[in-house]
Amino acid sequence: MDERVTFSAVTQAAGLLRGVAHVTPVLTSRQLDGLIRGQVFLKCENFQRTGAFKFRGAYYAVSRLTPPGTSGTVATISSGNHGQALALAASLLGVLAEVVMPRPFSRSKYQAVLAYGGRVIETANRQTAEEALQELLERERATHVHAFNDSRVIAGQGTVMLELQGQVADLDVLLAPVGGGGLLSGLCVVGHQVLPTLKIFACEPNGASDAEESIRLNQIVQVPAPDTLADGLRTSLGSRTLPILRAHLEGVLTVAEEEILAAMRFAYERLKIVIEPSGAVALAPVLRKEPVLFGKRVGIVLTGGNVDSDVFVKALEPGC
Amino acid sequence: MDERVTFSAVTQAAGLLRGVAHVTPVLTSRQLDGLIRGQVFLKCENFQRTGAFKFRGAYYAVSRLTPPGTSGTVATISSGNHGQALALAASLLGVLAEVVMPRPFSRSKYQAVLAYGGRVIETANRQTAEEALQELLERERATHVHAFNDSRVIAGQGTVMLELQGQVADLDVLLAPVGGGGLLSGLCVVGHQVLPTLKIFACEPNGASDAEESIRLNQIVQVPAPDTLADGLRTSLGSRTLPILRAHLEGVLTVAEEEILAAMRFAYERLKIVIEPSGAVALAPVLRKEPVLFGKRVGIVLTGGNVDSDVFVKALEPGC
Repeated sequence: MDERVTFSAVTQAAGLLRGVAHVTPVLTSRQLDGLIRGQVFLKCENFQRTGAFKFRGAYYAVSRLTPPGTSGTVATISSGNHGQALALAASLLGVLAEVVMPRPFSRSKYQAVLAYGGRVIETANRQTAEEALQELLERERATHVHAFNDSRVIAGQGTVMLELQGQVADLDVLLAPVGGGGLLSGLCVVGHQVLPTLKIFACEPNGASDAEESIRLNQIVQVPAPDTLADGLRTSLGSRTLPILRAHLEGVLTVAEEEILAAMRFAYERLKIVIEPSGAVALAPVLRKEPVLFGKRVGIVLTGGNVDSDVFVKALEPGC
Repeated sequence: MDERVTFSAVTQAAGLLRGVAHVTPVLTSRQLDGLIRGQVFLKCENFQRTGAFKFRGAYYAVSRLTPPGTSGTVATISSGNHGQALALAASLLGVLAEVVMPRPFSRSKYQAVLAYGGRVIETANRQTAEEALQELLERERATHVHAFNDSRVIAGQGTVMLELQGQVADLDVLLAPVGGGGLLSGLCVVGHQVLPTLKIFACEPNGASDAEESIRLNQIVQVPAPDTLADGLRTSLGSRTLPILRAHLEGVLTVAEEEILAAMRFAYERLKIVIEPSGAVALAPVLRKEPVLFGKRVGIVLTGGNVDSDVFVKALEPGC
């Protein structure tokens, strides 16, 4: 767990994911291009297996942690996409995934973990979830696969950028949402290895703008009660992701809740795709014609498409 | 207008559309594969410009009808995707599009025609629409571009199949919805040119199953009051499409309204894409495990993604 995230780990992850993860398409839109008088490339990880990029990191981590063919157990805390991703990755690699889900969580996420063959341990809150995880690690000797603060997970997420760079040449700017920073750390490591001049921006909701402050203060800041529909972005950075982001990021762009809903609606109306609030956070800056994007070739990671219909309906309401 | 639809017209259309229309991606889903123990390839024309395949036929027809650089006017009757497509095609080719829209029509379609630079003539019903069209053709010497009963339009739609065959080898079966039969005629001409053994099925709603009867009786049958959410499929076949479909189709699969909504919901939940009811009609047979699809390599044309949010919300309701 103390290894650094290297470019060669990402290429190794890409090799293991070949034929297992989807090579997700890049969509373009003349309307988006027009807004910034540049070119926008949407990396559609909402089309990834389990509906989010998380599958990449989970699969690579599980395949590294447990020798092929051995039985074993992996465990994590997740009420979101990582839990589903770990459940599927474990199932494909023949090990058991135990997913501790602190309430509140959506029924669809719960059912998805079960459908992918995982076991769910429901807990009342985050603190009891930590206790439940400790017990699994001690009693069942399960191996912990943290959702983002894990070098292997970060390397797996980095394959998004490896793929994108093969699909689109000469990006000037890259936008991706930041929650714990696992995806963004992987993007940074790969992005600057191949394109040293790439400007990478993190995007986060106003109601959970801990990453911006954490980077400024160089310490992990927690927002006491994150207030955002972007459930994947309520978490804080980790000890492994903060230093990577500090070293690589050009800046952090924050967006309002209405902008998140408007971006989901734009994706529905114009792009004909379903994106979850956390993914919409990285599209919103284009819609408000963020000045740093003007005239640029901009890559945007649409991180996932898992959104309960009651939330999606909000984005469809007129006036959003 | 009396020319037959030839394979070489389709390849000419493909040449003209290069760099103008999107090459739409083909999505796959292990879940769909599992349902029919075969392989399913979704040709995503919902990602086409104007949100539907109609742009292909409209653009090719306009580019053939009017010499480049000349001013001119094209006219059509359409409350749906063809109107938008013709407006954009005309605008790109420097001519004016007049779109006669019989009520009822959705506000979003009306606004889209205007946004693409077309003119809208609103009429009370289908009969007055015909009168308005005649007036445009006589008074303004506009050129009529019928939504489907036009060899050039059919040839343009045939480029969907040309593209699909370049993306996926050795299809056994092809499913596409049938309204007026323009798309399906183009698919037939190209499909059997390249793959003589391909089995092509038309898909239509129970509430508008005129194509099935028209083909059986070899005459154009009209359903008096088509009752379906699939607004693009309420129309009857035309004199140019009926003979092509009779010559090429393996059969017609009809689906219930609940199946259309369930297919839209599946696309939202699992595929993370937005498809309109007319497009969902061709996906529904996979979800009910239609026997003719078992063990086969099945291409499905998802024709469009233009769906008003009040209809889309119906598909999201639990129980669909």
